[in-house]
Amino acid sequence: MSTFVVHSTVRLQHTDAAGILFFANQLIFAHEAYEKFMEHIGHSFASIFDSSDYIIPIVHAEADYLGPLRVGDAITVELTIENIGNSSFVIAYYIRAVDGTEVGKCRTVHVTADRNSQSKIPIPASLRNALERFRESSAHVDP
Amino acid sequence: MSTFVVHSTVRLQHTDAAGILFFANQLIFAHEAYEKFMEHIGHSFASIFDSSDYIIPIVHAEADYLGPLRVGDAITVELTIENIGNSSFVIAYYIRAVDGTEVGKCRTVHVTADRNSQSKIPIPASLRNALERFRESSAHVDP
Amino acid sequence: MSTFVVHSTVRLQHTDAAGILFFANQLIFAHEAYEKFMEHIGHSFASIFDSSDYIIPIVHAEADYLGPLRVGDAITVELTIENIGNSSFVIAYYIRAVDGTEVGKCRTVHVTADRNSQSKIPIPASLRNALERFRESSAHVDP
Amino acid sequence: MSTFVVHSTVRLQHTDAAGILFFANQLIFAHEAYEKFMEHIGHSFASIFDSSDYIIPIVHAEADYLGPLRVGDAITVELTIENIGNSSFVIAYYIRAVDGTEVGKCRTVHVTADRNSQSKIPIPASLRNALERFRESSAHVDP
Repeated sequence: MSTFVVHSTVRLQHTDAAGILFFANQLIFAHEAYEKFMEHIGHSFASIFDSSDYIIPIVHAEADYLGPLRVGDAITVELTIENIGNSSFVIAYYIRAVDGTEVGKCRTVHVTADRNSQSKIPIPASLRNALERFRESSAHVDP
Repeated sequence: MSTFVVHSTVRLQHTDAAGILFFANQLIFAHEAYEKFMEHIGHSFASIFDSSDYIIPIVHAEADYLGPLRVGDAITVELTIENIGNSSFVIAYYIRAVDGTEVGKCRTVHVTADRNSQSKIPIPASLRNALERFRESSAHVDP
Repeated sequence: MSTFVVHSTVRLQHTDAAGILFFANQLIFAHEAYEKFMEHIGHSFASIFDSSDYIIPIVHAEADYLGPLRVGDAITVELTIENIGNSSFVIAYYIRAVDGTEVGKCRTVHVTADRNSQSKIPIPASLRNALERFRESSAHVDP
Repeated sequence: MSTFVVHSTVRLQHTDAAGILFFANQLIFAHEAYEKFMEHIGHSFASIFDSSDYIIPIVHAEADYLGPLRVGDAITVELTIENIGNSSFVIAYYIRAVDGTEVGKCRTVHVTADRNSQSKIPIPASLRNALERFRESSAHVDP
């Protein structure tokens, strides 16, 4: 299974008055990893916004919280492709503290749709190839 | 089934460059409804932070996205208690546009834990009573 | 001097691990008031995004913090038009706690620019009229 | 003049429906640089929260917006200490695009206060020394 690793740090903006990461912000870290991953496979958000005739809305997201994260905590997000369907794909994210403890996980489901009609379309070939190539590469990308 | 309704509006801060609500911010609207609900049943976050010996971390969250939301869109969040367990409870949120279309839903799972030890504890009686009283009241609270 | 009042509440998402409002989020409350004000004078963001040939970027923002705000604190934002220039206008925001104490203030400077060329243009007549009409109305709008 | 440089990237979460960086989020980048800087000089937020008897609230912030930033844009934040007073200090931030164009600047004013009484106190010696040592080092730290 190929893995794409992103290193981040919990900043004050991500925390709340309970002293820990505000729950919705775990998905911010997941999405940041997803954006870097899309750049890595040649499908950056900038290029999709500028020049593609499709969009990739998220239709489902979920998150588990396995341990508290505090300001200054370094984390790694390990992104894997969990599934590639006909017009959707699923990304999973494992979030670990520096000592390796799993502190959270997320999953996001992405659908490809025509930019104008907003109707579901099969994943465009170029994106499908990039996703499949990464998934089958057994890569462990840690830039 | 009792329902607690919160009215909100999508603001520029909630949107992203795709022109619609940034996915993680749907959970912001859910949590805002949850905070107002907790105030309504007499267990405001302010009082929990100031004077309770327990905390109520979220251990799981999920969201479905059923339609795009844009800046200025008025929404209603309908909150219901989906389950009350021994040391956890589940809140569900149905998000509708002004015309009644369901545009999203969320679910959050909350655990009660001792503030010092951070270990799971049974839902304290006062909170359990407030949750159960609301759930059994068949109320439709739309402040 | 005309005033447009918006009532808000500090939510968990706005706070940070110091237990108080994260400083940048004071500008979120100011901008929310600005969006409601623009709707009030008939120039909603939705209408500007959909159908105007100009944009109104913010070129300067500033904020003073006069007292701590905590989760659950109710606030009022009092918006006034501080200046209307040739191609820019200035909005000021006074933020008060429920007891009337001033807890913060902000100022934002907005420039009108052509949507395509991005060059500065004089404030379009319809917007200028709406801004001037409000400023001269001695209104105290508290919806 | 010593400079501390932080590299960041504009992510989808930072943008809004106008297609560019949401104005308040420029201060997020500034504060992230400030947090990294404080770690660099040995006064991390984690250590201040855990073990200091003082707090360092921001009492003023301001931002200028000199050019639009879009999703995926790499930026550098150059942090300098603009002033060290008796019980306050001022940090300035120059934000540049990859081609060196200045796209924004910020300034934040920080006050030292007793954690319990919340009253202003002179900048504690250890923090003052760290700030002065950095300012006088003519360093250009680009980690």
